[in-house]
Amino acid sequence: MRIAILLFDDLTALDAVGPYEILSFLPGARIHLVGERRGPVRAHRGGLGLMVDTELDELTDPDIVLVPGGPGQNALMDDGPVHDWLRTADTTSTWTTSVCTGSLILAAAGLLDGRRATSHWLALEQLSAHGVEPTGERVVVDGKYVTAAGVSSGIDMALTLVGRIAGDTTAQSIQLGTEYDPRPPYDAGSPDKAPEEVVRLLRDNSRFVLQGR
Amino acid sequence: MRIAILLFDDLTALDAVGPYEILSFLPGARIHLVGERRGPVRAHRGGLGLMVDTELDELTDPDIVLVPGGPGQNALMDDGPVHDWLRTADTTSTWTTSVCTGSLILAAAGLLDGRRATSHWLALEQLSAHGVEPTGERVVVDGKYVTAAGVSSGIDMALTLVGRIAGDTTAQSIQLGTEYDPRPPYDAGSPDKAPEEVVRLLRDNSRFVLQGR
Repeated sequence: MRIAILLFDDLTALDAVGPYEILSFLPGARIHLVGERRGPVRAHRGGLGLMVDTELDELTDPDIVLVPGGPGQNALMDDGPVHDWLRTADTTSTWTTSVCTGSLILAAAGLLDGRRATSHWLALEQLSAHGVEPTGERVVVDGKYVTAAGVSSGIDMALTLVGRIAGDTTAQSIQLGTEYDPRPPYDAGSPDKAPEEVVRLLRDNSRFVLQGR
Repeated sequence: MRIAILLFDDLTALDAVGPYEILSFLPGARIHLVGERRGPVRAHRGGLGLMVDTELDELTDPDIVLVPGGPGQNALMDDGPVHDWLRTADTTSTWTTSVCTGSLILAAAGLLDGRRATSHWLALEQLSAHGVEPTGERVVVDGKYVTAAGVSSGIDMALTLVGRIAGDTTAQSIQLGTEYDPRPPYDAGSPDKAPEEVVRLLRDNSRFVLQGR
């Protein structure tokens, strides 16, 4: 089973690496870090370099496609090599997936037409503009299309996927192996739980969060 | 504020990238990806390449030191350049931190003598051998030494750290920005919650989990 994780400049590193970690333990899986050009892309803010090892035309029929988000998503909304690759890969994929604003890229490539999907909570309404029905759920499964909400939700999405592919025991083993027993020191991870001033702060800076400026 | 995240071959990518993501939003912080040699290290299992941009002798006085874990930890238990760097950096750091088996490296370098600390649940007893008092807590703060349990716990640790450094509102904003409202599809993230057969499976394969073979 070949898993293609798309990497691009200004992505949110955790969008890609959360699911990467979980999926790397899927029995029989091989992960390919795919991008337009071999070599490092640079993540948003911290500048972490993540290596692209496989160029788009070197892997056109992965079993799982995963598209992370981050401010770099904005540069991938027009038709081009990445959309072409996504449409080709999607014709044979078993699962086509995204984390955070990665769903906007899938939507712009025309892969989510008429489907239910999610995205970062600040980007949900942008999905509608692409003919997608946005939902506030953390992980949305609509046929073979699996989308996750913001950033950290990719971990929950990947565990859900592993459960469907390899069964509950394997998924639970990976959860225990990665000690994923979350205990955030605050309960502010969604707009209906966070203090009002914090939600307002993020809404007022949504351009910064979604576009990096 | 300079944050040094140590990278090495066969690390667990999420150990480093979970806290990286959270800390990259800390106001005024600059993250440095530090390692023995500039260029990519390769993560355990999936082979993701993460770029070292700063060599050890280029940053000897970071404010925060973060040591991830993973099977590559085993190659860093003997005295050498990494231990030297850790001891030097620790003389001026405000916080010296680890995720997963990264605490074993800190312990082997002599930085956790007589302190309370944590590690991956399968590695807790190894801490004792280095004169450290192991605890099963997810995040342990003992003075300026902050250690996190296995893999995903680095996210909780980093949010705890941000709260102490920049206050609750900033930490909550980062939690909301990364939509860290975890909803794992199973409740198997710690040995006292996972089904018995899953715990046994991991214990029987602890060498594989901790040493990659």
